[in-house]
Amino acid sequence: MNVDDVVNAFVPGPRVRIPGRAGGPLAGLSFAAKDLFDVAGLPTGGGNHDWVKFNPVPESHGWSVQTLLDAGADFVGKTITDEVSLGILGENPFDGTPTNPAAPDRVPGGSSSGSAAAVAAGLCDTALGTDTGGSVRVPSSFCGLYGIRPTHGRIDVTGMMPQAPSSDTTGWFARDAETFVRVSSVMLGEEPGPLPTRLLIAVDAFGFADPEVAEALQPMVARLAGIVGEVREEIMAPQGLSVWSKAQRTLQPVEAWATFQPWVESANPRMAFSVVAGLLNGAQMPAADRSWASLMRQEARARLRHLLPPGTILCLPTTPFPAPKRGLPLPALQPLRDRINCLCAQGGLTGSPQVSLPGATVDGAPVGLSIIGGRGTDAALVAVAQAMENAA
Amino acid sequence: MNVDDVVNAFVPGPRVRIPGRAGGPLAGLSFAAKDLFDVAGLPTGGGNHDWVKFNPVPESHGWSVQTLLDAGADFVGKTITDEVSLGILGENPFDGTPTNPAAPDRVPGGSSSGSAAAVAAGLCDTALGTDTGGSVRVPSSFCGLYGIRPTHGRIDVTGMMPQAPSSDTTGWFARDAETFVRVSSVMLGEEPGPLPTRLLIAVDAFGFADPEVAEALQPMVARLAGIVGEVREEIMAPQGLSVWSKAQRTLQPVEAWATFQPWVESANPRMAFSVVAGLLNGAQMPAADRSWASLMRQEARARLRHLLPPGTILCLPTTPFPAPKRGLPLPALQPLRDRINCLCAQGGLTGSPQVSLPGATVDGAPVGLSIIGGRGTDAALVAVAQAMENAA
Repeated sequence: MNVDDVVNAFVPGPRVRIPGRAGGPLAGLSFAAKDLFDVAGLPTGGGNHDWVKFNPVPESHGWSVQTLLDAGADFVGKTITDEVSLGILGENPFDGTPTNPAAPDRVPGGSSSGSAAAVAAGLCDTALGTDTGGSVRVPSSFCGLYGIRPTHGRIDVTGMMPQAPSSDTTGWFARDAETFVRVSSVMLGEEPGPLPTRLLIAVDAFGFADPEVAEALQPMVARLAGIVGEVREEIMAPQGLSVWSKAQRTLQPVEAWATFQPWVESANPRMAFSVVAGLLNGAQMPAADRSWASLMRQEARARLRHLLPPGTILCLPTTPFPAPKRGLPLPALQPLRDRINCLCAQGGLTGSPQVSLPGATVDGAPVGLSIIGGRGTDAALVAVAQAMENAA
Repeated sequence: MNVDDVVNAFVPGPRVRIPGRAGGPLAGLSFAAKDLFDVAGLPTGGGNHDWVKFNPVPESHGWSVQTLLDAGADFVGKTITDEVSLGILGENPFDGTPTNPAAPDRVPGGSSSGSAAAVAAGLCDTALGTDTGGSVRVPSSFCGLYGIRPTHGRIDVTGMMPQAPSSDTTGWFARDAETFVRVSSVMLGEEPGPLPTRLLIAVDAFGFADPEVAEALQPMVARLAGIVGEVREEIMAPQGLSVWSKAQRTLQPVEAWATFQPWVESANPRMAFSVVAGLLNGAQMPAADRSWASLMRQEARARLRHLLPPGTILCLPTTPFPAPKRGLPLPALQPLRDRINCLCAQGGLTGSPQVSLPGATVDGAPVGLSIIGGRGTDAALVAVAQAMENAA
């Protein structure tokens, strides 16, 4: 195992290795954890140097870290994250921006940037991330990885830094389906399956993605259709992808402000301009907007319950385009973030599980195909990932 | 001359000394420059580590630095400033917060914090600062120094980092009137005088200050009255000190955003949360508010022209209270900032010259008495400073 951090995936400083329990189901695997997860005795950095100064070093492992160690995987380091998980592109001015191993001139995606980069570069077999608004799914798509956002509430988030609790989830990455299945079985406490029998193709989401992306994903969709059987085109968000996104981009910043306000007001921390702008957006959100967004969340949940009875999954492009170039100025980034959010909002809004599958590229850069199931059907999505690789 | 930086006044790193021209009127004096002034060959840090990264090292001295060197003063170092001059309390998370030598458990005031601390601690004889919304006057009051905000436009600002150009000025500090007069004569190019003959006491401003401050300043007001002669109580801002402040706090952030937007959008810099909040306030200012503020600026200018014909000065407390304690949380600081701005807004709004005089304390901490004259009467205010010390 190469432990030389050639892609700037790990947080700066000496790296601690913690061996997993001998003989577990993940024996022989190594894992990293996004620097939002507590590892006993190590500071939880949160991607911001004024976070670590104002928060104590944890005395116990977070639930997910402990679970992977108990299953036999070796912990090999903490990975770079966007500041306090507020970012979708993976650029961090404190610890640096990890290299996207699949497309080195492009961003890795975030906020679980270092975890994705470490797995994609082969520095570890799997890595923990968090996904509130897309922070596992987007780097999965951009780095060409398997990545899961589990059903909201399914994975214990003890020892994971919160952002917007009603949307926060713990996810993980892998390079191959076999590892993805092994890790998922442990984390979910459930073997893969059953395979779904109906596939919905989200025509609104495919239409919203760049045409090159929709086209590049067609062979994967065809393979998926071959596995699942019955296929139907459907509109995922009849109210509008941008409307679902607007609702999520209302609720999430309000919760994030509630989470970080005590720290911000006591520490007046240094943060990237764009991160403060996002927090203030939440601080200043009008009550009427919040009320509307809560109602739209109910509509979105009802829509996915209606579309996704047991045995049915839906597919869509994980991101509307492959990773943008590194170092773009803020005015160029904002419209890209906005478009990404339109394809990711359903996760935080509805809590449905989603897996991003690798296998397509545009201009040489990866882009993922996502599958979504009804709440609690995480293991069925994992089974699809396995079947997709077997059918490749 | 003690060059040991016991009050954290100077920017971190090796200190460069530049001797002044031999035989000038300031021979034997030493000066420091706020890290917003260009000194050839040294980075202009601006109090933010992501500013210096995105701006070239200047090749020539700023006008004020050159003027003091030409007059024979020795340059002894660059001093800490609030980030890109956006602050009034003197707290800086990048370079540290200078100690207030006159009250070590309190903030030094800002944004010219290090310049005030260096002079107050005797590390140099005078120091350059900038004053847009109070950044020389407030640290003068808090550290017990002579300090001047000259008539807007009088001092060449070449080689001084701008913030809000229609309010920006170059000012300076001294511990004693003799040094203040020597430096002022060089900077203004004019000897002190003539002494004014009429004194207005700004009853609205004295009433707005803490009662202990108004009381502590009474002996100084009496001495001032003895020097000037005729005395009359007057309302400085009939529209309201808070209304003048609102106008200034509308115009200044809009100009500051225009100044810093290109840097912010290209560099996405790390800044203290409160500094970003101020910039975004400017970015989001409604056009109707800007229009109103411009009209109120005209009213304020007309008011001071009417009150301050040649030979008349007005006095008021420089700040409504002595320096606040260090390290207060943001919710405690904001109302303090707001009150300070009410007594400082007239400077940026009208461009009138103002000198803060030391000589009073409350709870052992200094608080200054300010004198304001009509535009262009800077030398008359300097003459009053000299006469006040002679009469003490």
